[in-house]
Amino acid sequence: MTQSAQDPGFHGVFPYLVSPVDAQGRVLDAVLGRLVEHLVAAGVHGLTPLGSTGEFAYLDWAQRRRVVEVVLEAARGCERHVPVVAGVAATTNAEAARQTAEFAAMGVDGILAILEAYFPLNEDGVVAYFTAIAEASDKPVVLYTNPTFQRSDLTLPAIRRLAALPTVRYLKDASPNTGRLLSILNAVGDRLRVFSASAHIPAAVMLIGGVGWMAGPACVVPTLSVRLYELCREGVWDEAMALQRRLWRLNEAFAQYNLAACIKGALELQGFPVGPPLPPQAPLSEAGRAEVRAVLEALGAL
Amino acid sequence: MTQSAQDPGFHGVFPYLVSPVDAQGRVLDAVLGRLVEHLVAAGVHGLTPLGSTGEFAYLDWAQRRRVVEVVLEAARGCERHVPVVAGVAATTNAEAARQTAEFAAMGVDGILAILEAYFPLNEDGVVAYFTAIAEASDKPVVLYTNPTFQRSDLTLPAIRRLAALPTVRYLKDASPNTGRLLSILNAVGDRLRVFSASAHIPAAVMLIGGVGWMAGPACVVPTLSVRLYELCREGVWDEAMALQRRLWRLNEAFAQYNLAACIKGALELQGFPVGPPLPPQAPLSEAGRAEVRAVLEALGAL
Amino acid sequence: MTQSAQDPGFHGVFPYLVSPVDAQGRVLDAVLGRLVEHLVAAGVHGLTPLGSTGEFAYLDWAQRRRVVEVVLEAARGCERHVPVVAGVAATTNAEAARQTAEFAAMGVDGILAILEAYFPLNEDGVVAYFTAIAEASDKPVVLYTNPTFQRSDLTLPAIRRLAALPTVRYLKDASPNTGRLLSILNAVGDRLRVFSASAHIPAAVMLIGGVGWMAGPACVVPTLSVRLYELCREGVWDEAMALQRRLWRLNEAFAQYNLAACIKGALELQGFPVGPPLPPQAPLSEAGRAEVRAVLEALGAL
Amino acid sequence: MTQSAQDPGFHGVFPYLVSPVDAQGRVLDAVLGRLVEHLVAAGVHGLTPLGSTGEFAYLDWAQRRRVVEVVLEAARGCERHVPVVAGVAATTNAEAARQTAEFAAMGVDGILAILEAYFPLNEDGVVAYFTAIAEASDKPVVLYTNPTFQRSDLTLPAIRRLAALPTVRYLKDASPNTGRLLSILNAVGDRLRVFSASAHIPAAVMLIGGVGWMAGPACVVPTLSVRLYELCREGVWDEAMALQRRLWRLNEAFAQYNLAACIKGALELQGFPVGPPLPPQAPLSEAGRAEVRAVLEALGAL
Repeated sequence: MTQSAQDPGFHGVFPYLVSPVDAQGRVLDAVLGRLVEHLVAAGVHGLTPLGSTGEFAYLDWAQRRRVVEVVLEAARGCERHVPVVAGVAATTNAEAARQTAEFAAMGVDGILAILEAYFPLNEDGVVAYFTAIAEASDKPVVLYTNPTFQRSDLTLPAIRRLAALPTVRYLKDASPNTGRLLSILNAVGDRLRVFSASAHIPAAVMLIGGVGWMAGPACVVPTLSVRLYELCREGVWDEAMALQRRLWRLNEAFAQYNLAACIKGALELQGFPVGPPLPPQAPLSEAGRAEVRAVLEALGAL
Repeated sequence: MTQSAQDPGFHGVFPYLVSPVDAQGRVLDAVLGRLVEHLVAAGVHGLTPLGSTGEFAYLDWAQRRRVVEVVLEAARGCERHVPVVAGVAATTNAEAARQTAEFAAMGVDGILAILEAYFPLNEDGVVAYFTAIAEASDKPVVLYTNPTFQRSDLTLPAIRRLAALPTVRYLKDASPNTGRLLSILNAVGDRLRVFSASAHIPAAVMLIGGVGWMAGPACVVPTLSVRLYELCREGVWDEAMALQRRLWRLNEAFAQYNLAACIKGALELQGFPVGPPLPPQAPLSEAGRAEVRAVLEALGAL
Repeated sequence: MTQSAQDPGFHGVFPYLVSPVDAQGRVLDAVLGRLVEHLVAAGVHGLTPLGSTGEFAYLDWAQRRRVVEVVLEAARGCERHVPVVAGVAATTNAEAARQTAEFAAMGVDGILAILEAYFPLNEDGVVAYFTAIAEASDKPVVLYTNPTFQRSDLTLPAIRRLAALPTVRYLKDASPNTGRLLSILNAVGDRLRVFSASAHIPAAVMLIGGVGWMAGPACVVPTLSVRLYELCREGVWDEAMALQRRLWRLNEAFAQYNLAACIKGALELQGFPVGPPLPPQAPLSEAGRAEVRAVLEALGAL
Repeated sequence: MTQSAQDPGFHGVFPYLVSPVDAQGRVLDAVLGRLVEHLVAAGVHGLTPLGSTGEFAYLDWAQRRRVVEVVLEAARGCERHVPVVAGVAATTNAEAARQTAEFAAMGVDGILAILEAYFPLNEDGVVAYFTAIAEASDKPVVLYTNPTFQRSDLTLPAIRRLAALPTVRYLKDASPNTGRLLSILNAVGDRLRVFSASAHIPAAVMLIGGVGWMAGPACVVPTLSVRLYELCREGVWDEAMALQRRLWRLNEAFAQYNLAACIKGALELQGFPVGPPLPPQAPLSEAGRAEVRAVLEALGAL
C-alpha cells in the first residue's frame, strides 16, 4: 500500500525480451544474460522481460521468476544502468498482487501490468485488478492493453480511474489504433506517459506525445531503434521517417508470424541460440526465416 | 503412452462443479463434499470439476489439485459410483501432460481437455496439444471446445485427427451452434460420443445423437436434469420438450451473467455456502439473484 | 396501416428461390417459372423469392419486381396453391414500406422482412424499420434475422415489441444458435411461429416447436425435404433423424461456399440453366461442383 | 476503357458532404449549395459527396444523382475551382460501372470507389469490382476501404493489383490502423497517394507520407482543417500537433455517435438546416448535441 510520487522518467526504447527455455523447461541463463548485455551495450533505455514476446502466458511462476532474476543480474553487471520493467499477468487480484510484491522484492524498477481474463469483466473488475497491482508495491506501473490477444480491454473511463493511483504512471497500448493513444493523452496525458507497441508506428506515436516504445522487434535492431528514438526526440522528422520506413518492414514481417517465434528465430539468425517458442507453438517456418533474414540483411542487422 | 480401447460408457448428466474457495484461497472442503454427495444422491451420472463453471482459469495448481482431491474423496464415499472427469487446462503441451498424469495418478475416471492459447495456433499446434493430453495417461479424454471464451477452436479436420487416438472418446462443444454437432457426429460419430453444453438445448442434442450434457446449471437442478435425460433416452419427446422448455429458463438466466457467479449464487440460495467467484470477478448482482431465485422457485428447486 | 388478425397458417418447406439473371441483367423468366412448377409439383408448402439465396442484395428494384412477378405468375398456374412470401430489404423505412406496398398490390401472400443497415442501429431504430413494413400492408410478415451477413440483429426485447403488431406473425432466424430459437419461443411463442434456416438442423427446430424451414437447399431436394417435414410432424423422430443426417451433408456443403453460387450450381447440375451468381460473386468452383454433385448423387437427387 | 496517365494532384482537405433530404425524400438543394459555397470560401481543397457521412447507403439512385448534380453546380459557381470526387457504391460490377459512367458524364473530377458486399468476396472478386469502376471512365479513382462498416476489406495484395490500373491513383483507408497506411505506402507509395479518414490522426498520416484527408468533421471546421493541413505541409510539427490535439476532440465526439447524425446535427447548430439523417437512423440525441456544441464552442466554430 506504499505510494511514490517520484517520477522514474521511463522513456525511450524498451525491448521486449524473449524467454529462452530448453526442452526440459529450464531457463537458458547464459544466452539470456548475453542478450541483455548486448542490448544495453547497443544503447537501449530499458528492458522488459515477460511481455507477450516473452511468452509470459506459456511460463509457470518458477520460470517467470528465473527469467526476471537472470535479467536483473545481467543488467546489474552492465556499466550503464537501465531500468527493468517486469511483466505481471494473472486472472485474479490475489495472484497479481503476489507476483508484483515478489518482483518488487527482487529489485525490478517497474511493473508491466497485464490482465488475463476468462469470463468478461466489467469496468469495476478491470479497475480492481489493476488497482491490486498498483497497491502491491511502490514500483511505477505500466498499464498494458492488448485487445487483439486479450479478452478484456481498458476503456477510457477505466484508464482515467487508474491514472488517479499514485503508482500508475505509464500506459502501453498494443492495439493498432493510434488515434486511441491521442484520446488517452488528451484525457490523462498530465498523469500517464504513453509507450508505443509494435502495432503502432513508433515515430507517429512520438509525434503525438509518446515517450518511447516497448516492443519485440527492438530486440533485433536495438541500435537502429535507439537512432530512430533520438531523431524523433530531436524533431528531425524527415530523417526519422526515412529510417522509420525502413524499420517498418520488420514490424510487417513480425505481424505475419507468431511474435515469439519470430523474434526467437531472428535472434537465432543473429547468433543468439534462444531456441524455439514453447510447444505447441511452432518455430518460425522456413518461409518466415527467409523473410526475416532478408529484412535483417536489408537493415544491416545480420 | 498407455492406451485403452475399453469404452467407459460415459453418458447422462455431468454437472460442472463450482470451486468454493475462501478469501485466503483455501478450498472449502466441507461444502464441496456435501455438494458432491447431494448431486450423486439426486441421480447424476458423473461429476466434472474444473470446467469453465469451476473457474479453472482462476485457480493455481495447488487449488485445482485440492478441488479434484475433495471431489474424488466425496465421490468414493457415495453408495453409487459415478465417474469423475477432471478438467486439464494449460497453454503448453508439457504442463497439460503433467496435469493429466497427476490427475490420473489420483484416480480420476476421465480427463476434460481444455486448451488455453495466447497466440493463435494452427491446426498442427492444436492437435499436438490435445495429443499430449491423450498420451499422458490411459484415461478417456473429453475434447472441450468453447469458441466464446477461448482463442482457439477445434476444427473438423483437427477433431478427425484426434478421434484416431485411442484415448480420445468424447467431445463437448460449448458453442451455441447445434448444427456443428451434427457435422461432428456425421464425421466421427463412430469414434467420438458427444456431450451437450449449456449453450445448446440438451433435448435437441439428444435427438441428434448426443449422449448427455456437461453443464453448470445441472448443479442446481440435478433431479430435473436426470428426469429430462431419461425422457430423451426413452424417446418420449413431447414430455421431454415440455420439461426442457421449463428448464431452458435457467440456461437463459445463466447466459446473462458470469457463469461461475451465477451457479455459485444459485447454490447459496439452495443452502450451499460456496461463496462468491474469485475476484476480480463480481458476485451475482442483486438483480441477478432475484432472477435466479424466481427461476428456481418456478422449477420447485428452492 | 390496415391490420389482419387472420392466421394464414404458413408452415412446412419454403425453398428460397434463386434469381436467374443473364449477363445483361434480364431475369430469365422461363427457367424461373419452370423451377417454381417443379418445386410445387414436388410438394413444397410455399415459395420464397428474394431471400439471401435469391441474391436480393445484388438486384435493383426492377429486377426484384420482375422475379416476384414471374414467381407469382408461375405459382398461379400450378394446380396446387402455395403461398408466395417475397423478400423486402432496404436501409430506410420509406423504401421498405414502398417495396412492401408494391409487393402486396402484386398479390404476394406474405412478406419476408430483411433489414439492411450501414451504421449500427439501436433497438428503437430496428423496431421502427420492421414496424414500417408491418404497417405498409395487411400481409403477414416474417421477421428475418441473420447476424452472420447483416450488421444489425433482432434482440429479444425488439422481437417482443414487434410481436405485438398484428401483421407480424412469423420469424426466421438464420443464426446457427438453436437455443436462441427456444428462447424466442419461450418469450413470444404464442404470437410468433418460427421457421428454421439452413444453419439450423430442421428436425431439431421442429422438435422444439418450429413450423418448418425457409432455406436454399430445399430448392434442390424438395421431395426429401417435404418427406423430412412430414416425419417430424408425425413425431417419427428416429426415421426423421435418419433422413436428416443424410440431408445435413447438403447443408454442410452449402455452408462452405457462397450460398447463391452453390444453389445455382446445384440447379445447373439438375438441368435448370439458372446461370452463375451476379459478378463480382464467383460461380461455384470446380471443387465445389464436384462436392455438390457427390452429395446430390448420394441423395438420389441427380 | 479509356485511360489517363495525368495526375490530377488531389491533396488537402476534402470534406465529406452530408446529404440533406426532406421527409418526402427530396434533396434540399438550397442548403446543400450554400454549404458547398461556404466550404470552398473557407479554403477546402476538394469536395466529396456520397461518402459514409453522405449516407450513400440510405439514398436511391435518383437522390444520389441529384446530390452530385447540386454539388457540381454549386462548385462551378465558386470563384476558386475545387475538384468534386463523388462516391460510387454498389454490390455488382455492372451497377458500379453504370454509376461511374453517369457521374463521369455529369462532370465529376474523380470517383470514390466503395464496395458493398453481402456474401464475402475473395480477392479476385474484390479486384474485379474495383476494376469495373476503374475501367468505366477516365476519371481518377480513390479506393475506399472501411473494415468497420463494410463486409469486405482491401488486402495488400488486392491493393497492389489495383494500383497497376492507370486510373487508380488514390486510397482512403477508414480503419483506425495507421500502421496499415505505412505498409500500403511502403508497397505502392510510388503509384497510390493516401488520404486519411476521421479514424486516423490526420497529422500523423501527413507525417508518414499522406496527402490529406477525406472526412466528415472537416464539414464543420473547414478553416481550422485547412490550417492544420498547411502546418503539416510546412513541417511545423509542434504547431501542427497543438492544433491537432484541439481538433481531435471533434473526432472523438463523432466517433461516439452515428456519423451522419453528428455532422448533420453540428451543421444545424452552425445555421445549416440540413435536417436529420434518414430514418430509421436517429437524429443526434440531446446529450450528443450538447457535447458537439461544447466542442464546437471550444474551437470557436459556433
